[in-house]
Amino acid sequence: MPVKRAIKDSLQGNRGMEFENYIIQANARYRLRGIASIDKVATPVKVIKYATSGPKKGRITDGYFEEKSTVDFIGVSKGMTIAFDAKETKNKTSFPLDNIEDHQFEVLREKQFHEGISFLLIRFKLHHEIYILLFEDLENFWEEAAKGGRKSIPYHFFKKNCVRCEPGRNVAIDYLAALNKALLI
Amino acid sequence: MPVKRAIKDSLQGNRGMEFENYIIQANARYRLRGIASIDKVATPVKVIKYATSGPKKGRITDGYFEEKSTVDFIGVSKGMTIAFDAKETKNKTSFPLDNIEDHQFEVLREKQFHEGISFLLIRFKLHHEIYILLFEDLENFWEEAAKGGRKSIPYHFFKKNCVRCEPGRNVAIDYLAALNKALLI
Repeated sequence: MPVKRAIKDSLQGNRGMEFENYIIQANARYRLRGIASIDKVATPVKVIKYATSGPKKGRITDGYFEEKSTVDFIGVSKGMTIAFDAKETKNKTSFPLDNIEDHQFEVLREKQFHEGISFLLIRFKLHHEIYILLFEDLENFWEEAAKGGRKSIPYHFFKKNCVRCEPGRNVAIDYLAALNKALLI
Repeated sequence: MPVKRAIKDSLQGNRGMEFENYIIQANARYRLRGIASIDKVATPVKVIKYATSGPKKGRITDGYFEEKSTVDFIGVSKGMTIAFDAKETKNKTSFPLDNIEDHQFEVLREKQFHEGISFLLIRFKLHHEIYILLFEDLENFWEEAAKGGRKSIPYHFFKKNCVRCEPGRNVAIDYLAALNKALLI
């Protein structure tokens, strides 16, 4: 539910660190250390009313979040385009594919098609584990599901085949270190 | 003035095609033809009030545009990260560098540093001409200006050294064709 999340993000202010905030923190660190330039993509807002005068001058007084037409995070590192979405599940045994909307899958596919590196960062909340799911793995499961196969990726698949993100380089989720490992496998 | 533009974009609806809309049109065409996947980056909105019930349920009732911390457009083509801002000037004889804010220059520099392709698409409104200004050229002028040199890029520099964007592939501004030429020079 990207739009819901955009609202939450925008309202939450300084509540406890959420998954996405850890990624933003990692990106800030990567930027500072010259490792990568990766940004969170803002969710577009459709403005209906905008105050050009009065006490609310310069403020949006009516509007709504539109569906994001691209990935959650995009950037560049060593010439590679990095494009990914961050997903969380409370499910212990699998990652349900309905966490990903069709258009999100299509955007990841498109970035990959143009030789970017597309992936998902998947957090199993109850296991306190985060994995890199490369697009090619996602695509295999996605196509299986489309053919009537299972609609989720089993937890043991991650455990066995995916690289887990660990803390490192002074950030809680050093996901680029994990991505580099995943690309070498 | 990126924030002002975000407001204008969001409000204008179906007025005549603006420069940025031509770029968006080109991107749609590139997407369709499998040439590139390049997106406009939304300007983030800080939500102050959000209606969770009542007739405005699901709507932002108070908020404002924040400064964009990244480029106007980002994407990927043939594995290359493409990052650029679109700028217009009514000036006939030069492109004033104060059209670019410091943080915009820094973001372009950062994408280039990580081996992306950073550039500006510059439209001389009164000449009806659009040019590709590669980051390395921008940087030279930027650094000259910082040393006390001229604060603008002369029009004849564009005329002599930059590739002009022409219509092509069914779009009014086939800027990727121009970029490819510019990269080969």
